[in-house]
Formats: sequence, structure tokens, C-alpha cells
Amino acid sequence: MRHFTSVTQLGDLRDAFAEAARIKENPFADQHLGKNKTLLLVFFNNSLRTRLSTWKAATNLGMNVIVLDVNQGAWKLETERGVIMDGDKSEHILEAIPVMGSYCDIIGVRSFARFESREDDYGEVILNRFIQYSGKPVFSMEAATRHPLQTFADMITIEEYKKKSRPKVVMTWAPHPKALPQAVPNSFAEGMRLAGYDFVIANPEGYDLAPEFTEGVTVTHDQDEALRGADFVYAKNWASYSNYGKVLSRDKGWTVTEEKMALTDNAYFMHCLPVRRNMIVSDDVIEGPRSLVIPEAANRVVSAQTVIKRILESL
Amino acid sequence: MRHFTSVTQLGDLRDAFAEAARIKENPFADQHLGKNKTLLLVFFNNSLRTRLSTWKAATNLGMNVIVLDVNQGAWKLETERGVIMDGDKSEHILEAIPVMGSYCDIIGVRSFARFESREDDYGEVILNRFIQYSGKPVFSMEAATRHPLQTFADMITIEEYKKKSRPKVVMTWAPHPKALPQAVPNSFAEGMRLAGYDFVIANPEGYDLAPEFTEGVTVTHDQDEALRGADFVYAKNWASYSNYGKVLSRDKGWTVTEEKMALTDNAYFMHCLPVRRNMIVSDDVIEGPRSLVIPEAANRVVSAQTVIKRILESL
Amino acid sequence: MRHFTSVTQLGDLRDAFAEAARIKENPFADQHLGKNKTLLLVFFNNSLRTRLSTWKAATNLGMNVIVLDVNQGAWKLETERGVIMDGDKSEHILEAIPVMGSYCDIIGVRSFARFESREDDYGEVILNRFIQYSGKPVFSMEAATRHPLQTFADMITIEEYKKKSRPKVVMTWAPHPKALPQAVPNSFAEGMRLAGYDFVIANPEGYDLAPEFTEGVTVTHDQDEALRGADFVYAKNWASYSNYGKVLSRDKGWTVTEEKMALTDNAYFMHCLPVRRNMIVSDDVIEGPRSLVIPEAANRVVSAQTVIKRILESL
Repeated sequence: MRHFTSVTQLGDLRDAFAEAARIKENPFADQHLGKNKTLLLVFFNNSLRTRLSTWKAATNLGMNVIVLDVNQGAWKLETERGVIMDGDKSEHILEAIPVMGSYCDIIGVRSFARFESREDDYGEVILNRFIQYSGKPVFSMEAATRHPLQTFADMITIEEYKKKSRPKVVMTWAPHPKALPQAVPNSFAEGMRLAGYDFVIANPEGYDLAPEFTEGVTVTHDQDEALRGADFVYAKNWASYSNYGKVLSRDKGWTVTEEKMALTDNAYFMHCLPVRRNMIVSDDVIEGPRSLVIPEAANRVVSAQTVIKRILESL
Repeated sequence: MRHFTSVTQLGDLRDAFAEAARIKENPFADQHLGKNKTLLLVFFNNSLRTRLSTWKAATNLGMNVIVLDVNQGAWKLETERGVIMDGDKSEHILEAIPVMGSYCDIIGVRSFARFESREDDYGEVILNRFIQYSGKPVFSMEAATRHPLQTFADMITIEEYKKKSRPKVVMTWAPHPKALPQAVPNSFAEGMRLAGYDFVIANPEGYDLAPEFTEGVTVTHDQDEALRGADFVYAKNWASYSNYGKVLSRDKGWTVTEEKMALTDNAYFMHCLPVRRNMIVSDDVIEGPRSLVIPEAANRVVSAQTVIKRILESL
Repeated sequence: MRHFTSVTQLGDLRDAFAEAARIKENPFADQHLGKNKTLLLVFFNNSLRTRLSTWKAATNLGMNVIVLDVNQGAWKLETERGVIMDGDKSEHILEAIPVMGSYCDIIGVRSFARFESREDDYGEVILNRFIQYSGKPVFSMEAATRHPLQTFADMITIEEYKKKSRPKVVMTWAPHPKALPQAVPNSFAEGMRLAGYDFVIANPEGYDLAPEFTEGVTVTHDQDEALRGADFVYAKNWASYSNYGKVLSRDKGWTVTEEKMALTDNAYFMHCLPVRRNMIVSDDVIEGPRSLVIPEAANRVVSAQTVIKRILESL
């Protein structure tokens, strides 16, 4: 594996799940791979799980980890070419990226959608510039349109907990006070289609995801109908794609509550975290015995370690 | 040792001092204990000594260290249950803590008193939630009511410098422009009682510490009287406990000066740092030959390493 | 080597270049030197290259690295003696420095010119206090008047790319929106004199550097004349020395463009980065085949590793 920006790059899924299981069983077995190798983690945005789990994964593999918070202790970066740089940005990303590349062996990048332009966000400008200019393998720690390490962790979790070979997985939109990117739902839809689960998306009108991510997927605006018979409920907020970046609804009727979960086939509850309690999900559901949010987050180490291991093997 | 939140958990003090001395003599002897073990340091507040000394201690033990500054580069955390999270806090501590726990083997937590409610502070809400929900051993890097790694370092320092088996140790309040927590004085009082020194506290009226920390201790409002015959002077500011979190006095008559030190039996001067010069202590005293502030700070590595070693041994 | 604050401390330059070349060829050969040694990097100012390259260099040498951003997550530091510390600074540098020294084996310090007083800046107050009070070897990661790790990397780069034994190197001032320190140009001038290159400085009137750095150097106010026959063009902005810290010109006639480069003998373009495009240099020049800015930045690891290796050998 050279770059990792989408779960579609995982290759044969059974192999990937088997490799992840071996890594989970024996996390320190591959430390020879990372010896004298440095992973640079570049954050353009906040992070808790991704920061810690990727760091832990790299450490398990024997790597050195260097963290760069671009907005803390570094320079503000210009991204456009041809600009006269007489403002507050003192470095151009076209210098900063190859320089970063020269100090490490692998780069992880987090760069969220900015909602200034759908074209820019869906063009994955920042992530692609790292791939193009760093000279090093790059993996996404959540970009504007996908969060593949999260989705891979979600898939590993579903594989661990599923009771039937093709469970019904429902991803439901839920309300949130602010506009959130579509990276997680896009990526999750991508993963569910790959895995071949019985996958349904429920969201209010105006919240349909970009068509390239939902091709062939059942999309309904009736949450209750979607939840019936579900084995896994994956809750997530996202801002509108068609009315790009807008919050069209904060309808608490979409909050995942015990009543909603009662419609399912005793489904597990999943969320990528961080989660707004009593907006996305009630306290009872997230704390209940069917909540997988903690094992799901713990699998972020497994997911990252599998991907970084594959990149190390390809160096 | 499972959790470490108070020096009262150190067990037999002679054993603890002997172990600390061995670690100081040979800091790299126990690196097998930390191999493939990860320490997560979680800071809700600023830190210099604690950050560096705990990091160094863990590194001496062969551990990996991951630092998380909650207020920089992570999400703001909600701590109350039942809240509709539609404000600026995007994650609940009830998710954040077990997630952190899943990425490490031991957690160090710094969480100061907030002076919003004495009940909350003295209930040690944050620290206790880490103990309750992280699933991992937790040690305090200063909580609302105690700073046990500081106190243990103070005790090691007194043991190193004392000329008699039961020295007179005076902890004196001193002025400061802002309201400071009682964690250090509470914890120091706890340590002095454990060690069985001749311990006296001097503070202005209105500044008596919480009774559970001063039981059996001589408390006086006459600083000069307290200082007479002292072998060690431990200066510290704290805000009022009875009039909780209030600054009742900035009386410079309590600043520890050469004149004050002349009342003692050629006492050593101690302070946990950071210290406000010419508020708490004069330049002359802190720079003088009887000042122990630097060796005391250096012993923070020894103190932390002893505690982390014991936790590692219990894993 | 004990402290490193100027390239004049490199000793025999041929030896230094040869050592740097060996390190570049085989970066992991000296890991025994750094075992159980801790490098503390103290940043009073922002950093990208210095942070990452110094961290990587120390890691290559087998060291542990601890980073302290003084303005993020630590305490504000008082630097003057005799002050009553009742303001926003809660720690004095006279305590903070020896404490830092007690937690590490070597200290790297970044502390820029503050332009409050030329005397203070040129007295290198912060750097010298670390040397005086830390008790540990100290190296500069850019101080008020010099940036020796940058200059050493620049020199290594010129040695790698030069076609004649004594190339013509032109350092030219170029416009910038803000007042920048003289550390890089001072230090570069120092290095060029040491290396014995044919060295010329071009800057507008009012921008002559401090005389101690330009003794015996040709300084001209005619950029075009300077550029003729140049083998290397080193662009840099700096604020006025005589009219200390002032921006006297933003004349775009000094921007290094293709037209300017056409005056040279097919010169290489160099800059320490970060660089303001279309202020200091045009997009075309910095992206062109003669631009050395990326290999120059990559040599920052080699430069830092050579210096840290020498300090480790002297411990």
C-alpha cells in the first residue's frame, strides 16, 4: 500500500479483517518494520481519538512519532498559487509539504472540509497536495470527504459483533447544533457497500449524501421504517450536501432514543465519537449494554496499525 | 499500587524513601518494566515541572509517553450527565475517558480546582471519573485537593537534607495576586503528618485549611512565632477554604524575606514552584545557599518514577 | 562541543563538512551516543523546520525528545530580577531554567529578537541565561542575533552544489510585510566569511547589518550589480539594524524574479524558509530547477545531527 485515503484501497476485505485480527491479538509482533522509521502526524484540525490511536499504533510498530499541529506552534499556510503573500500566512504549502516530507518516512494528514466551497472540499485539495508534493506515503486521518481509518475500525467492529453473515446496518442522520462534514457518512457508506452488508441510510429531506457514495444504497427519509429489523444502528450528523454546508434541520425527532432502538432487532448502537449526548443519542442508549462506541474507538488502533503496517511493508 | 492520588497510599515510608534513593542512583535499571507500555498524560491545566518530570520518569522506565492537552488540539469536554449538548462542548467525558483508557496502560491526570463549587472541587469529580471509567491505573499530576507527586518529592528532599531525625517543618502562607488551589498545602500537610516531623502551619486568619488535612497539626496565625527554630520553611499561597476560593489578604508582611529566615534555625527554604518572587519570597532568599527549590524540583523525576514503577509492577 | 550558538564554534570546517556527509550517508550509525539521553527543545516562538528537523536528528541519534512550547501549556516567564511578580507572569526564568536543566541532558532553545530593545536582543538575554543557569549544554535553535543550525545547513548545501572551490554567493535583502529579525542574515554572513566564499551582500540603504557581522564583506545597495556572476543567490528579508526593528522599505523592485536571476551565472536560489512568495521571490524562481530550498531544508537534519552528536560526545 502506498497511500491510504479510502477503504476501497484495502484490497481483499477478508485478508484485511484477518490481518487486523492478528494485529489485535499480538500488537507488538511487527516492531522490526518501524525501526528507525518516523511517522509525521499533521493536524490542521482538532483530534482526540485519531491523535492517540494513530500514535499508539505507530508506537506498537516500533516507529518514532512526530506530531505537528499546524495551527499551534507552526506557521499559517497559504494554499493558493500566485498569491502575493503579504498577509498573515507566512509559508506556502508548496514549500511546507516537501519540507515535512524530508523529515519523515510516512505522513498522516487531518484536514477537514471547510464548507467554503463544495468543489474545493470534494477536490480534497490539502490531502492531494500532500500526496503530490511530499514525496512520501500519505494516509488520511480524516480528510474533507472521507475518514477511512474510522470506517475501517467500524467495519472491524461490525465483523466482531455481527451474528449473521449479512447484518442489516442502518446509518441514520441525527441532529447537531453545528454544520458537520460528510467525511464519516461518505466513508461509512463506502465501507458498507464494500462489505456487502444490508445497508440502509435514513436522513431528512435535503440531507442526501453525494450520489457517488450512495449508488445502489437504499436511502429513506423515514427513520422508523429504516430502523425496523436493524442489527446495527450507526448514528451521525452531517450538513447538507445539496445545499452545501447548511444546517437544514435540528429535529430532535431524529435523536436515537430507547424508543427508536426498540424498533430494531435488538441492534447495537455505534457512533464514531465525539458525540453530542441528547442531540445525536440519549444518555440511556449510549450508556446501555448494546452500545459499541468504546470498543469501536478502541479498534481505531487496530485499524491504523493495519494500514501503517502495510505502508511500512511497501517502503 | 493501582491508583495514586495521595501520599497516604505510599505504604511504609522507609521503603518508599529507600526505593526512591535506588531509583535516583540508578534511573535506568527498570526499563524492562516499561517496554511496550504507554503512559498517557492528560492535562486540563498548564504545567512545566509536572509535564517534563513525569515524561522523563516514564522514559527512564522505558515507556512510551503520549501527551494530551485537553484545551489544545482536543475537544472541549462536557462533564455533567443529562445535558443536551448543543453548546461549545462537543464530547462527553463519559466517552472521552474510556476511549483514552483504551489507548494506553497508565493515565496521569492534571485537573485543578476550579473554585466554582467547593463541593465539586473537594469531590475530585474529574480525577474520580478517570479512576471510575478509564479501566486503567490512574495517578494524580495535581488534582483539586492534592498534589501527591509534589509532596512525595518534597518529602524525599527533606529526608536528603534533614540534620535531625525529626526536623521542625513550617509551612507558611504567603501573598499572591490570584486565588490558588489548596492542593499543594493539603497534600504537604498530609505528608508531614505521615512522616511524623514536627510540623507547624502558619497562615492569616480566614486561611485555615480543610480540617481533614490539619487534624492534630499546630496551626498558628503568628508567622514569626512559627518560624522560630524551624529547620525547613515551606512557603505557599492558597485561597481561603472557609470563604471558598476568595483572596482575603495580600499582606506583604507574610512574604518570606531574609529577616523572616533569620528567625529560624538556619532553615532551608522550599517551594513547589512556580513561585512569584517578591510576593511569596524575596530574590535573596530563593537565590540563597539555603534554597532547595531546584533540588526539590529535580526530585519530581524521582517521585514520579517511584510511583510509576510501582504501578507498572502491579499491571 | 559544549554550547553551540554560532557557526564560528564549528572548528575546522572541512572536518565539519566531512562529518556532516558521513551522518547524511548513515544517519543511524551513532545511536549508542543518545541512549538514555534526553533532549529538551524549548520554543519561545513558532517553528516548523526547526521543530521537526531537530526532533528527527535527535531521534536518529537514539535520544528521547521532550518539547516545551513556553507559550502553550506552560507558564509565562518573568525575565527581570527584582520585579514584584504580581502580574500575569507566574514563574521566573531564574527558577524555570535550572528546573528544565534538571530534567534533561541537552537543551535546544528558540528565542527570537523581540525588537523592544536592540541592546537586549543583541545581548542574547534568553539564550545566555540558559547557558548560565541550566547546568546543561545549550544549542541555539535561532536566537535574537544568529540562527547557526540554519547557516550550517546552508553551508552544507552550498558545498554539495558548488561547481567551483570559491563560488560567488550573494545574499540579497528582499521585501516583506513585517519586521523580521537579523538572525539569519547575520549568521549567514558569519558562515560565508568562515567558508571563504566570494561573498556579497545587497540591501537597500538603511538596511546594513551590524558591523561585527559584515567586517571585510562587500556590501552594495545595487542589487543588479551584486547579482552579476553570482553562483548562489540567498534571499532574505530583515528589518533595519540602524533604525532598529523598523521596516523602511517594501520595494518590490528587490523581489527575486526570473529577470533578476537572469543577471547571474545560472545561480542556484536559496532561502531558509518560511518564504513569502511574490514578496521575497516569484513563484517561478522558487519552483524552478535551480531552486535549492527543499534540499536546503532537508539538510537541517544533517546540520542539527552533527551538532547534537558533537555535544553528546562531550558529555
